[in-house]
Amino acid sequence: MTTPGTTTSPTTGSPTATPRERGIGMRFSLHPHCDDFVAVILGALDDAERAGLTAGLTIETDDVSTWVGAVDEPAEQRLVAYLAAVVAAAHRRSDGGHVVAHVLLSRGCPGEVGCDLSVTGLPRPEPVRVPATGVAAAAQWSLYPLLDGGSDDGAHMAHIERAIAQAVERGTTRGAAHYATRLSGDVAEVLATVADAWGDVGSAVAHVVSHLTLSVGSPTAVPR
Amino acid sequence: MTTPGTTTSPTTGSPTATPRERGIGMRFSLHPHCDDFVAVILGALDDAERAGLTAGLTIETDDVSTWVGAVDEPAEQRLVAYLAAVVAAAHRRSDGGHVVAHVLLSRGCPGEVGCDLSVTGLPRPEPVRVPATGVAAAAQWSLYPLLDGGSDDGAHMAHIERAIAQAVERGTTRGAAHYATRLSGDVAEVLATVADAWGDVGSAVAHVVSHLTLSVGSPTAVPR
Repeated sequence: MTTPGTTTSPTTGSPTATPRERGIGMRFSLHPHCDDFVAVILGALDDAERAGLTAGLTIETDDVSTWVGAVDEPAEQRLVAYLAAVVAAAHRRSDGGHVVAHVLLSRGCPGEVGCDLSVTGLPRPEPVRVPATGVAAAAQWSLYPLLDGGSDDGAHMAHIERAIAQAVERGTTRGAAHYATRLSGDVAEVLATVADAWGDVGSAVAHVVSHLTLSVGSPTAVPR
Repeated sequence: MTTPGTTTSPTTGSPTATPRERGIGMRFSLHPHCDDFVAVILGALDDAERAGLTAGLTIETDDVSTWVGAVDEPAEQRLVAYLAAVVAAAHRRSDGGHVVAHVLLSRGCPGEVGCDLSVTGLPRPEPVRVPATGVAAAAQWSLYPLLDGGSDDGAHMAHIERAIAQAVERGTTRGAAHYATRLSGDVAEVLATVADAWGDVGSAVAHVVSHLTLSVGSPTAVPR
């Protein structure tokens, strides 16, 4: 995959750096659990595009997932609005069936493997505000601050703990699981919880990644 | 979810610590893209259990994913053998259909959110050897060293770069994508590539997480 416009610029890290310069984006895969999954996926992507939600984003779909890079502000808002619409559309197009999205949110590593970011002057994004989709989700969420300025060993855990405390206050958390925090709520609210935490930690840490497995329309707990 | 046996012990980090004490395990979700996904998932889990591949593992399935904790050595080998069998069985049970697994491998954070690990004496695991499944996979892989002993900012990137170089040498890499490395090959070989890198970095870094989106039976590249 080519990566246009992802070269780290000298202004990266300054408050005026664009979302693209700060490498803000996501990669997601969409899994409708139905025979006509191809039509559901393509239809859901089209629905979100026709709703105008691809504005300010660069989108590339490959054989495993879809990359969405934020070009314009508000970056986090655009990403969440687009993804919430895609998931809700896939749910609707599969007649309320089981759809899972796996999401990787990333900021601070635009040049793929190599990172060469200044950690000064990281802006704190505005909280995401996206209308409820009407679709309830259960999710498992992990947050990884990766470039925390050489602070002591446990420093990145403080960022995670603060982010989780904010999610608890918001009412979307259902407690901890192994390696993840359990979330539930409207698709839009769950995604906003995750994006806000990611953006918040990103105001203190240059390279922050978050993973989310988001499930809608699941049959009740698998008997196992 | 309750988390029996995950309290960090005083011996954590010593060469004699068990896989459980070192928090070695994975969380995965399995996504057959077909109407009878529940039967496929449960059948695949049963197939792997009947094949004896759950020995030395603790397995708990919830409404979003399945947690697999390694109890006995060889930990990485047991995890890969089990997961390769589950994915191959799901592919077979869906008549060669499209199945995606999302996998989170974790080591070094047994106590969920809080980490309290010694970083001395981490053993280097043996390379994983699992027979080919006969099922070809395409995958996207990310590796996150999270507790690197307070080394300088870019130190964790050196671990990632070495792990990716080893995967390149192995022949499973297809190049970089945004936020991920693309892999392809037999399901077992792709999983072994990821687990070996994770274990290798884990011999130098106490807390290492890796995420993998593994796709089998996909229709040819989505036209987009």
